[in-house]
Amino acid sequence: MSTHPEQQMQGLVESLLESYKKYPIISNIDSCSRINREVVLEILEQLRYIVFPGYFEMRNLKSNSLSYHIGEILESIQYNLTKQVARALFHDPAKTPGCWEDGREESAEIVREFLQTLPRVREILATDVQAGYEGDPAAFNTDEVILSYPGLYAIFTNRIAHELHLLNVPLIPRMMTEYAHSLTGIDIHPGATIGKYFFIDHGTGVVVGETTQIGDNVKLYQGVTLGALSTRGGQVLRNVKRHPTLEDNVTVYSGASILGGATVIGTGAVIGSNAFITASVPAHTRVSIKNPELQFKDRSRTAELGQEGFFNRKEVD
Amino acid sequence: MSTHPEQQMQGLVESLLESYKKYPIISNIDSCSRINREVVLEILEQLRYIVFPGYFEMRNLKSNSLSYHIGEILESIQYNLTKQVARALFHDPAKTPGCWEDGREESAEIVREFLQTLPRVREILATDVQAGYEGDPAAFNTDEVILSYPGLYAIFTNRIAHELHLLNVPLIPRMMTEYAHSLTGIDIHPGATIGKYFFIDHGTGVVVGETTQIGDNVKLYQGVTLGALSTRGGQVLRNVKRHPTLEDNVTVYSGASILGGATVIGTGAVIGSNAFITASVPAHTRVSIKNPELQFKDRSRTAELGQEGFFNRKEVD
Amino acid sequence: MSTHPEQQMQGLVESLLESYKKYPIISNIDSCSRINREVVLEILEQLRYIVFPGYFEMRNLKSNSLSYHIGEILESIQYNLTKQVARALFHDPAKTPGCWEDGREESAEIVREFLQTLPRVREILATDVQAGYEGDPAAFNTDEVILSYPGLYAIFTNRIAHELHLLNVPLIPRMMTEYAHSLTGIDIHPGATIGKYFFIDHGTGVVVGETTQIGDNVKLYQGVTLGALSTRGGQVLRNVKRHPTLEDNVTVYSGASILGGATVIGTGAVIGSNAFITASVPAHTRVSIKNPELQFKDRSRTAELGQEGFFNRKEVD
Repeated sequence: MSTHPEQQMQGLVESLLESYKKYPIISNIDSCSRINREVVLEILEQLRYIVFPGYFEMRNLKSNSLSYHIGEILESIQYNLTKQVARALFHDPAKTPGCWEDGREESAEIVREFLQTLPRVREILATDVQAGYEGDPAAFNTDEVILSYPGLYAIFTNRIAHELHLLNVPLIPRMMTEYAHSLTGIDIHPGATIGKYFFIDHGTGVVVGETTQIGDNVKLYQGVTLGALSTRGGQVLRNVKRHPTLEDNVTVYSGASILGGATVIGTGAVIGSNAFITASVPAHTRVSIKNPELQFKDRSRTAELGQEGFFNRKEVD
Repeated sequence: MSTHPEQQMQGLVESLLESYKKYPIISNIDSCSRINREVVLEILEQLRYIVFPGYFEMRNLKSNSLSYHIGEILESIQYNLTKQVARALFHDPAKTPGCWEDGREESAEIVREFLQTLPRVREILATDVQAGYEGDPAAFNTDEVILSYPGLYAIFTNRIAHELHLLNVPLIPRMMTEYAHSLTGIDIHPGATIGKYFFIDHGTGVVVGETTQIGDNVKLYQGVTLGALSTRGGQVLRNVKRHPTLEDNVTVYSGASILGGATVIGTGAVIGSNAFITASVPAHTRVSIKNPELQFKDRSRTAELGQEGFFNRKEVD
Repeated sequence: MSTHPEQQMQGLVESLLESYKKYPIISNIDSCSRINREVVLEILEQLRYIVFPGYFEMRNLKSNSLSYHIGEILESIQYNLTKQVARALFHDPAKTPGCWEDGREESAEIVREFLQTLPRVREILATDVQAGYEGDPAAFNTDEVILSYPGLYAIFTNRIAHELHLLNVPLIPRMMTEYAHSLTGIDIHPGATIGKYFFIDHGTGVVVGETTQIGDNVKLYQGVTLGALSTRGGQVLRNVKRHPTLEDNVTVYSGASILGGATVIGTGAVIGSNAFITASVPAHTRVSIKNPELQFKDRSRTAELGQEGFFNRKEVD
């Protein structure tokens, strides 16, 4: 501590350089396949311009210049995403390490295929906006859902990331969904398959695991987990179906957990708040927990009070 | 897939243009009432400068130039917010669609009224900062509450948004509170009415619904829901009181849910962790759940152990 | 309301100036110790460049210029952080108020000591990345953990903030961890002490209190609270151990709460989902709640169904 500050700093630089060699697992030096997270997130934003035209750009969209405007954004995405996908391909530990330029052809084709899915993605997002408006008495109009609802942002990002995931693009889909997770508190893995008219209300704390399958017209509330029974196996469980299947018209209320790859929630089932489900539920069934008994204590007289008389428990669904 | 990339891109632009016509619900083209989200969030930040002067600006505030500085920010808010409010007014489906310039007068008056509420908003936020400091042993001083506490940011945003909500401004209040939701994990609808000395500790996962009424000196912990019993009615339930009332001096511990528009939590009541409340609770009552029985298993000997002897359940409040 | 807009604005400025005097608790005018939050967050980002070189910078890192690059960033952190720490020191209510220049020497020394901890911080973060990869079947490779995992960002921030906390720097550590809380939904107080190979999966809603002690190889899931039994004492409880101790190899599943400063979770214990623990648990024990009984209702026939036959509850761990 009595060394001169300049020497101290020099010593620190040296021990950091040593540390970079000793722990290469968290160093990425002299790599030519560094993914640029900022660029990936900018692409995601541009995809939002394409999918919801006129809502998030800084200027008004006019129909007479629309075709030019759209073309320009798509060219930019094609160019930048190709670069990032090429880099992502060389992050696969199973692949020969190489330089991203080697993967340019392959990734250009992947990005072209991906962009062709956008009209279909848009079609399905129109149903999600409708579901968000119809399902929430607090929604003012459909524009409010587009402009403000975290659930819509999360499903928009999942639908984009899922298409890239289906094209076997590593890392980038997850960077997108984790960004959405950061903004919304909703953690949907890009691998999850989700049907039309999907709505997540409030959303903070929602987890939808990698191998989850969700049908049409499903509604989730805050704090719902669609998860695995146990991940103690770690990497051994990679690619095994570990997360549940929800059929059409299922509603899952806040705080409920549905776990396990063999668990199927049948059409039209309703899962009550805080339920903990680890086995299949038949169609058209309402499952709710017997809520834990409540205890009442009078804080002013410090005396125990019975539950009857002033408190009537009502069923919730 | 064998088509030439340029043709493919041209085809994609065309199918997107078609899609924009086919799904106008998620298109906003040739509209003259596009709300600029970036501008709205910048206004919210400027309002924070006004309400907490000297904490978040990039430079020091000096008292000799303060009046000029404040005037300048207020003029900027008046100008920009007027534009955005005018645009928001034309998003009301009940209104004749028009151009935002038509609503300029009306919205200028709304913004003037709104700005007059700021001294009152400031007065009440001073009590929230006090409550945050006094209620949390981890708080270093009141400046820490202002600089860092997510609960304070959420209530600041709610108090601003609530004033705009009372002036019947559509969309903008919700854009503000959903931005705060994104930053804090705390989802307070602009419609919620909240008394003085309000404090939310940690906060992630808190939901406070549109028609909630909260008295003075109320404290909420992370994961608390003040929600509706069922929103299955969707838009039919618009403007109906669906969320609970909490009277003065109520504390709600983490993970508890209090649901229903007729549910009243009386003065001084304490709601324990994870309680699920769907009916009124009298004043000065402590409600806690009988926690679910715990099961213990010795993992080293794979033998079942009894609960007695090594584990004494204590009451928590 | 009939006053002229300009007079109205002038009146508003005056009542705000009055309010600034009346509520100094939320005013920071003529202060020479204003902490610049933007600068603090930029420093945190630069520390991420140092700790995970080559992942988050805008350009590729080359080993031949690495020493120069690292030195430059460190000099910038030394300069800027010294300023901010000096300012933070004068926010301590126990200290004579003064100007930050007076604390420059002291804080320069603090920052030098802090920077010397970085190689050690890096060593331990390498174990966290390994734990994240090994513990999650959905992890593609270790780079994905670094680039995307919110749990890793939260623990990176805690490890940095904790070193500043140990050097008695006020306010700044908490600004850092609350920023991470905002991005990840994971709220770890800078005071918490955490061992090697730490992993938080999903993470939204996790709370780790100020006086928590965590051993090596511990895994937490979303919604876990390591909290205090009661904070009703407020500031009286400052610096008292209020939060639990988790020994090595403990796993805590989603939604569980472990509360109290005397609560010790022994080596190798597993705490099941939603368990509510307020007393110590011996080593190598698995604790799970008897899940609340489920009720089933056939929604198509509106008839009550028994649980047997179609629903087999399985144990989860």
